[in-house]
Amino acid sequence: MKLLKDNLGLYTDMYQLTMMETYFKQGKQNCPAAFDYFFRKLPYDGGYVVFSGLSELIESLEEIKFSVDDIDYLHKKNLSDDFLEYLKTFSFNGNIYSVEEGTIIFPNEPVLTVEGNLAEVQLLETFLLNILNFNSLISTKASRMRLVASNKILSEFGLRRAQGFGGLQASKAAVIGGFDSTSNVLAAKIFDLNPVGTMAHSFIQSYDDELTAFRQYVKTHPENSTLLIDTYNTLESGLPNAIIVAKEMEKSGYRLNGIRLDSGDLAYLAKAVRKKLDEEGLHYVKIVVSNQLDEIVIKSLLEQEAPIDVFGVGTNLVTGHPDSALDGVFKLSLCDNKPRLKISENIQKVTLPGLKKIIRYIDDKGYYQADAIVLREEIKIEKMFHPFDKEKFKNLKNLNNNVITIPVVENGKVKIKLENVNMVKEKVQENLSKLPPEFKRFEYPHIYKVGISEKLMNLRDNLKIEFTLNNNNRD
Amino acid sequence: MKLLKDNLGLYTDMYQLTMMETYFKQGKQNCPAAFDYFFRKLPYDGGYVVFSGLSELIESLEEIKFSVDDIDYLHKKNLSDDFLEYLKTFSFNGNIYSVEEGTIIFPNEPVLTVEGNLAEVQLLETFLLNILNFNSLISTKASRMRLVASNKILSEFGLRRAQGFGGLQASKAAVIGGFDSTSNVLAAKIFDLNPVGTMAHSFIQSYDDELTAFRQYVKTHPENSTLLIDTYNTLESGLPNAIIVAKEMEKSGYRLNGIRLDSGDLAYLAKAVRKKLDEEGLHYVKIVVSNQLDEIVIKSLLEQEAPIDVFGVGTNLVTGHPDSALDGVFKLSLCDNKPRLKISENIQKVTLPGLKKIIRYIDDKGYYQADAIVLREEIKIEKMFHPFDKEKFKNLKNLNNNVITIPVVENGKVKIKLENVNMVKEKVQENLSKLPPEFKRFEYPHIYKVGISEKLMNLRDNLKIEFTLNNNNRD
Repeated sequence: MKLLKDNLGLYTDMYQLTMMETYFKQGKQNCPAAFDYFFRKLPYDGGYVVFSGLSELIESLEEIKFSVDDIDYLHKKNLSDDFLEYLKTFSFNGNIYSVEEGTIIFPNEPVLTVEGNLAEVQLLETFLLNILNFNSLISTKASRMRLVASNKILSEFGLRRAQGFGGLQASKAAVIGGFDSTSNVLAAKIFDLNPVGTMAHSFIQSYDDELTAFRQYVKTHPENSTLLIDTYNTLESGLPNAIIVAKEMEKSGYRLNGIRLDSGDLAYLAKAVRKKLDEEGLHYVKIVVSNQLDEIVIKSLLEQEAPIDVFGVGTNLVTGHPDSALDGVFKLSLCDNKPRLKISENIQKVTLPGLKKIIRYIDDKGYYQADAIVLREEIKIEKMFHPFDKEKFKNLKNLNNNVITIPVVENGKVKIKLENVNMVKEKVQENLSKLPPEFKRFEYPHIYKVGISEKLMNLRDNLKIEFTLNNNNRD
Repeated sequence: MKLLKDNLGLYTDMYQLTMMETYFKQGKQNCPAAFDYFFRKLPYDGGYVVFSGLSELIESLEEIKFSVDDIDYLHKKNLSDDFLEYLKTFSFNGNIYSVEEGTIIFPNEPVLTVEGNLAEVQLLETFLLNILNFNSLISTKASRMRLVASNKILSEFGLRRAQGFGGLQASKAAVIGGFDSTSNVLAAKIFDLNPVGTMAHSFIQSYDDELTAFRQYVKTHPENSTLLIDTYNTLESGLPNAIIVAKEMEKSGYRLNGIRLDSGDLAYLAKAVRKKLDEEGLHYVKIVVSNQLDEIVIKSLLEQEAPIDVFGVGTNLVTGHPDSALDGVFKLSLCDNKPRLKISENIQKVTLPGLKKIIRYIDDKGYYQADAIVLREEIKIEKMFHPFDKEKFKNLKNLNNNVITIPVVENGKVKIKLENVNMVKEKVQENLSKLPPEFKRFEYPHIYKVGISEKLMNLRDNLKIEFTLNNNNRD
């Protein structure tokens, strides 16, 4: 699944290399370290995030290396010769613990942990964040459209407005989040998606009249034609011409697949078009709509009972608009076998030290109830605490539980069977069905409970005291 | 400048291929055609767009082809054998007229026109829009930050939050728009940008104390160290430790390059830090800030006279937030040697038919005054008309003028010397200096005048009448 021509060693921030250089010069590069991936703020003021991009990340690990050309480049940028010798043979040989791709995740949970030597884990940061943040944002956005579209067909049409080559990843992430198909042929080929598309306005304009354009198209694509009917006048020209062609197709034993509306009031037009098609006995002709759709517009169209069969969504899906990025971060939690902490004046930005895992608690009906972040060696906890308010806790005794973080890479080798996009897509829908509806609504969703174990709380708080003492001693 | 592993033939929407198939089956694939690229809505409620991505587009033309593997894939997707034989030998052999990369452009101007056979121009659409829309969005966003930052250093730090592999293009586009450097090493290598970076919080956390971390870093990077001082406590720990290290460096004949603030109130902290550094005789130590910056925050910090030397900008730059896409489109203007039009119920969406060029009018001081869209054969016009209101016109007699659309590709071959990113960056600044200030302000910028010639207006209006008559006759 290599996407770029180049290796990914240089697909990083310069400071990762300069920090590695210091580690190397000091002989600290092999110091055991762990970093956690987590996000802080839910996108779209929503109640959850769909974790996406894991396969892409772990399939790319072997590309995180440096070519002779890369080394020459870094030499010109004044990295030192002995360090560059080290980079020449660099490969990632660490471990990754992660929730499965397609898991529903919540703020501040360490959903993925990379363990390895300090140098290799540090280098990985930028690529890992780039992939997980973007894929998760888009899969989350897509899942919101799937929630409101129920069983209607959703098709991704965004490549022309995608953020450059991010469009390849956007199409994949959209399908993971619940889309059925994409217009993006290269993404479809690479990720085994379903590529779809029929005609643009330019096709119709390239003929002297609309009816000829429609006839020529269906002649060459009799089994899969969706006629775009708004080039000149939807109800006065496009629709009557589409009906003529649909009836001509019937005489040759074919059926027109659909018509597409790309402008105007889609609710009004879909109703008018459906009525006319039905009057003409063309009940089977689907109505496809596109034009600046998002989950809010789709929800509104269906609430208005617009008889739409297929929604084509572009810009607002593939760019994640109005949010443009998930704010995922990658924070050091262990170094040289000591738990590590980042202090902050903002208490919510104090990190969780040490090696951890996530336990998901589930009620008897299978619904998600709460997640606990615990130290990795902890077997069972009976209650969890609010991360920033010791007085608040939740009793976990009567709930079923699953550890949801599992080893996915060991010593640089992938340890799980990587699922294809369509399998992950199914898993997302299954997982979302276990998330109670109050976390899925768009307006003021309920806040899912994520707590920490008493041991983790104590470790963090003791480390905070220790750092504060160190600090005071120094002054 | 190949970025993707794959060819770009499949980097398109499926419907481009199905439309091409119809053209091919009909023998219409070689029909001469022209499409115009233009955008309709200014991003950021701003007054202009920086045209960016041209070099990437025209350098990629030779990659728009199909491998054996691609053909096999399309075969499985039911494209017909004879059409696939045609695709096997496909290459783009058309012409492109365009404004230069780095030109300041305005809504509805056909800034780039592709002419060729109908099939090749149709196929190009998706890739062209993907590249030009995204690069232009980011270069425009960057240029807004450069406008407010005047001569301060601007550095792009966004790869971790960029939209997947779009991050490569974002770093390049940011520099074109006025940034000085990037953290993105691969983009720096590919596009010859200036890669920068020193340390993250994790570096400091990986040591038992902050002072040791600082000392180790400057030991290995004595000539280029910027110490991140907010890991524990900016004013009580980070700053005093940085001062200790800076003074130790002086003894060895080195100078600390800078300190970086990544949290807290940047205006307050920058002032407090500058005061203390100056008191300690460390006037030369630069103050670098980062953390959710954009043009509004940079403007505010400088209005507060925060003594900041370098701004590191991430998410809001590389994703273009709050806008996520430029709405550029690619519309058929000529086919089979006939001018073509797209009618719309929205008069502002009626396209401009025929082959056109853009003339930019300039006053005696060199300031841009107005642009006229004229038919390509027109030599001189004396007045231009409002595109949608015939009663409004502007007299152009006393202005200097330049035709700004020039041939850049002929018969598939690049005809201009491609400029490197840094040359385009300089051109952008030069061009922006010719745009009067009222078009550059953020709040309610003045609307730049773009008009059309009388001949173009008549051609469009006559075609509209002709289409309407055709439509009425058919019913």
